[in-house]
Amino acid sequence: MKKLLNAPSDLVKEALAGMALAHPGLLRVHVDPAFLVRADAPVRGKVAVLSGGGSGHEPLHGGFVGRGMLDAACPGAVFTSPTPDQILEATRAVDGGAGVVHIVKNYTGDVMNFEMAGELARDLGITTETVLVNDDVAVENSLYTAGRRGVGATVLVEKICGAAAEAGRALADVAALGRRVNEHGRSMGIALSPCTVPHAGKPSFELGPDEMEVGIGIHGEPGRRRAKLEPADRITEMLMHPILDDLPFQAGKDVLLFVNGLGATPLLELYVVFRKAHEIAAARGLRVVRSLVGPYITSLEMAGVSITLLQVDEEMVRYWDAPVHTAALRWGV
Amino acid sequence: MKKLLNAPSDLVKEALAGMALAHPGLLRVHVDPAFLVRADAPVRGKVAVLSGGGSGHEPLHGGFVGRGMLDAACPGAVFTSPTPDQILEATRAVDGGAGVVHIVKNYTGDVMNFEMAGELARDLGITTETVLVNDDVAVENSLYTAGRRGVGATVLVEKICGAAAEAGRALADVAALGRRVNEHGRSMGIALSPCTVPHAGKPSFELGPDEMEVGIGIHGEPGRRRAKLEPADRITEMLMHPILDDLPFQAGKDVLLFVNGLGATPLLELYVVFRKAHEIAAARGLRVVRSLVGPYITSLEMAGVSITLLQVDEEMVRYWDAPVHTAALRWGV
Repeated sequence: MKKLLNAPSDLVKEALAGMALAHPGLLRVHVDPAFLVRADAPVRGKVAVLSGGGSGHEPLHGGFVGRGMLDAACPGAVFTSPTPDQILEATRAVDGGAGVVHIVKNYTGDVMNFEMAGELARDLGITTETVLVNDDVAVENSLYTAGRRGVGATVLVEKICGAAAEAGRALADVAALGRRVNEHGRSMGIALSPCTVPHAGKPSFELGPDEMEVGIGIHGEPGRRRAKLEPADRITEMLMHPILDDLPFQAGKDVLLFVNGLGATPLLELYVVFRKAHEIAAARGLRVVRSLVGPYITSLEMAGVSITLLQVDEEMVRYWDAPVHTAALRWGV
Repeated sequence: MKKLLNAPSDLVKEALAGMALAHPGLLRVHVDPAFLVRADAPVRGKVAVLSGGGSGHEPLHGGFVGRGMLDAACPGAVFTSPTPDQILEATRAVDGGAGVVHIVKNYTGDVMNFEMAGELARDLGITTETVLVNDDVAVENSLYTAGRRGVGATVLVEKICGAAAEAGRALADVAALGRRVNEHGRSMGIALSPCTVPHAGKPSFELGPDEMEVGIGIHGEPGRRRAKLEPADRITEMLMHPILDDLPFQAGKDVLLFVNGLGATPLLELYVVFRKAHEIAAARGLRVVRSLVGPYITSLEMAGVSITLLQVDEEMVRYWDAPVHTAALRWGV
């Protein structure tokens, strides 16, 4: 295992300390339990938006803490759900009296712990709403999931809910909008290489020198099938067609196209995939009105790519465009 | 070789097509010769800032084209200098009558071709100034260099020169400022794994399972020495001490600390390094007043990190903070 780390058990703690030092005006780090909040939390009267999950997917979620996006992020150990008390403490830290939206990727541990935290918060008089993200069309159930996995759409849900909350929308509205984004978003990914969880010390799966995993999960979970490596355009088709057929996306609609790097794949290659994905979307009569290209929801140093397509309406575009100031996503401010 | 590409010879062309589709309001792509310009180029009366070099270091340089940073970028083939005619055409495309600054990383091919392009531009009545970047303290001469290599400080020079040009500063002023940034910036990097140039099809060098290359170049050129892998804190010391001793950086000064991922290294690990680098800088009495963490000047999918420290003055900080709107760096707009 070749990684830049000290003791594997200190990785997340030390990275959080680094984030606090790198972004002093933007966020604050709470050490035990571990969570990040925006610098001005809690914002009185504003709905708070919180997400969390296992570490190893950075910049998700901590990189999205700040004005116009998340009020708090709860990082678990690498690929491990945050604990209920961790989520509860973060919820308390950001509650401004208008309730807290929990954005939860659909993995069994996350769902369970967020549910428990929500109940504990209610006992303290804090109202929470949960937005479950389950956009991955690759598989219906998986290693860590009942139902579909939550992947790339999470970034879009966090941005759009964050902007709606910033605009003063009520708890139920923000949550309903988040669910609508999830319902209109679909994703699928492919891996060219595995990744290594620091504690484990060896790759979570093996791929032959000419193999790829089609439909990979963000923890290295199996997808639909193992296949021979193909040219980028063919791989892009393998991802786009299941996505397009699933919603199904309809000709004439506006979409946001998000090409995400899983970790080790160079930006140059992501733009090659974006080019082909854009062409395929256009051939289906879809209008790509917004786009995002880069590593935003990763699997440590896995090589590969995922594509997320979101059928947007006017409200989603407006909140997508709204100012955001986080470590990893910033515009308008 | 496992990469998301079609024909290796089409990689740069297809990636540029993807960039044009992903950022339509921001930049325009010229296909032959290949270059990118900001959407509103040429900006009448403004000094233009242009950079370029081999591809494979993305987001450098194309990801920095836009308001407040580069007017144009000239991507060569992977790890190959752009040609004089390519640089000339880009120079012509962005000249707004106030001259063009060429920011050139110190590699023999780049220096030669930019020099030739500058002469050709002069023949056409366009005044150019060159800012040579040579911030890498690892080695004095190298595989592709007479003198020191240009690495991480390039990003800072491009941002600060771009802001100065946007503010209406004259050609000589923008160039002088760029040179001052280079003179006050120092960098060094380390590789945990090699990268593969698509045309070559195999890694450019080999590293044992417990080895790292200390002082790596951004094309995989040898550094100071091959060493056994060490904990992140020790590696950070190995990079910071040569940097700190070289300028030398003086207690009481303000610095910008830039921790750069070379490609495959997860953000989590970069923040671990940032934490330690910040601590080391503070122990020397330096005040880290600005920071940048992420993959901004990469070597394809190489795993590793580089650190750049820039001793800033008030003018540099002001131009660093000025609005920038590019694909990879954006704030204030």
